[in-house]
Amino acid sequence: MSKNILVTGGAGFIGSHLTDRLLDDGCKVTVFDNLSLGRLSNLEEASKNPNFKFVKGDILDKTALFKLFEEGNFDTVFHMAANSDIAKSHANPDVDFDNTLSTTYNVLLAMKEFGVKNIVFASTSAIYGETGVSVSENYGPLFPISHYGASKLASEAYISSFCENYGFKAWITRFPNVVGERATHGAIYDFINKLKKNPKELEVLGDGTQIKPYLYVKDLVDAIILVWTTTDEKFNYYNLGVETRTTVKEMAEMVIEEMKLDASIRYTGGNRGWVGDVPDFSYSLDKIHKLGWSAKVSSNEAVRKSIRYILDKDGVLV
Amino acid sequence: MSKNILVTGGAGFIGSHLTDRLLDDGCKVTVFDNLSLGRLSNLEEASKNPNFKFVKGDILDKTALFKLFEEGNFDTVFHMAANSDIAKSHANPDVDFDNTLSTTYNVLLAMKEFGVKNIVFASTSAIYGETGVSVSENYGPLFPISHYGASKLASEAYISSFCENYGFKAWITRFPNVVGERATHGAIYDFINKLKKNPKELEVLGDGTQIKPYLYVKDLVDAIILVWTTTDEKFNYYNLGVETRTTVKEMAEMVIEEMKLDASIRYTGGNRGWVGDVPDFSYSLDKIHKLGWSAKVSSNEAVRKSIRYILDKDGVLV
Repeated sequence: MSKNILVTGGAGFIGSHLTDRLLDDGCKVTVFDNLSLGRLSNLEEASKNPNFKFVKGDILDKTALFKLFEEGNFDTVFHMAANSDIAKSHANPDVDFDNTLSTTYNVLLAMKEFGVKNIVFASTSAIYGETGVSVSENYGPLFPISHYGASKLASEAYISSFCENYGFKAWITRFPNVVGERATHGAIYDFINKLKKNPKELEVLGDGTQIKPYLYVKDLVDAIILVWTTTDEKFNYYNLGVETRTTVKEMAEMVIEEMKLDASIRYTGGNRGWVGDVPDFSYSLDKIHKLGWSAKVSSNEAVRKSIRYILDKDGVLV
Repeated sequence: MSKNILVTGGAGFIGSHLTDRLLDDGCKVTVFDNLSLGRLSNLEEASKNPNFKFVKGDILDKTALFKLFEEGNFDTVFHMAANSDIAKSHANPDVDFDNTLSTTYNVLLAMKEFGVKNIVFASTSAIYGETGVSVSENYGPLFPISHYGASKLASEAYISSFCENYGFKAWITRFPNVVGERATHGAIYDFINKLKKNPKELEVLGDGTQIKPYLYVKDLVDAIILVWTTTDEKFNYYNLGVETRTTVKEMAEMVIEEMKLDASIRYTGGNRGWVGDVPDFSYSLDKIHKLGWSAKVSSNEAVRKSIRYILDKDGVLV
């Protein structure tokens, strides 16, 4: 490959791993990131590569975005920029309307304006809402219960209409919870931070039975690249994930074990951690498995890798 | 009923019929409309009713919108305001992003701010995209092909997440093409205008085989009110429509006949009128039929009523 790629949100958790991989594969990569969630330290390796370029900027600043496109002459946009903290926008829905939807919409406008025809998009299992059953890519109706899920579904909808109106091609990849090196927040971080404050007792939101697949970030990146390089419809869409799942209780116990503590766990009760949380999620991976991919790292292993990475770095995030 | 209702877009084609009906049913109705597509003449009858109030304003003006909600003390919002000219946003996608999606989002923010918990929403068959099959309300995947359809799907997605986050209740009613008195644009208008310029020949976009259900506006209003008054889930959603359909060719012939002309029809060819048009659409009405409702007026009759109304009024719109 010798493509000229734009990765939005490329300094973030998933975006930076994707950037590393695209550079390894011989692509020229420009990262555009406002560094609100992303960090330059995630791009330490990438920065050594002559095919890499970093531009600091905000997608909501249309002038800066259009200038980037005007100069960039990109073949393909990997649009990874978004708010990634789902719980956050309960108090302020604008967090996701602006950072998760309007960013996508502005990227589509820029693509239209400068004739860029290919977009790879980071979508989410949260578009499905609370289905109660394991769902395939063709599931309906789509009634997301978080503003994050709504904003990603809205993004998919506009990607679809831009494809039809302007001859774009899209690769929609839907992610479950993703963990691993460079993750910036989430339950694992919360547990570690709480245990640093009180090593005797860990308070856990919900009743601990919430169960989800946690996909290892490097497995995720493999799958995104596979979908992009091997599928060629006008509109390609895939659930990405891992067959196994981890309960919140298992996660809490793993954190305590890895921290070598003797803490008790106190559950706040209720079946979910926050409003908009889907407590028991799984979706069908048949479509991506048929492309010959499946996750190498199990959900529990992925969670443990993430815990060890944070503890090794002694990383406590604000 | 003695509810206190806000109808956004209540001076428009569908909104004004709905306003008339709600007043007839004894509700107090405030119409908020920027009069960009709506007209005060549509509210002539309503204006005579002491339960009616008109406020001119734009939903995109959040200060004006919040003031309206602060003073209004509404029970329920019928959110009808939107761009209604689907073909228009191919050249400028902002038309629908702003007027069809951001209007919905702002209304939801105002409801959250002022504790209004009930929303009845004008959605559309265009959320389904080009399915090739007759679809039920539970159809997936949802890949709209017009920016209008994308904006309505995005609106539904946010209505869903606001319901979950803030305890709203929603009635989503999805409309096919709607015709009848007070319609502001569409193929019937285009044909009449073209024939006034050239009574010998009518140019028709596409090959004339495009086929769609045209629902009579008063039937539509009956169905909306029925859904709102008889269903009580947290999130209620219904396809509204008519079993019969009309081809573009039939519509063109009816216009020529009603205008008493001897014009020939010249088709521009291709299977659709514009980018984003779904040329062969039908969807399942089983769910609304189970509520005991079906359209009284057939698709062809509805089209003919619309033609006669426009010709009676000698109405040529710019």
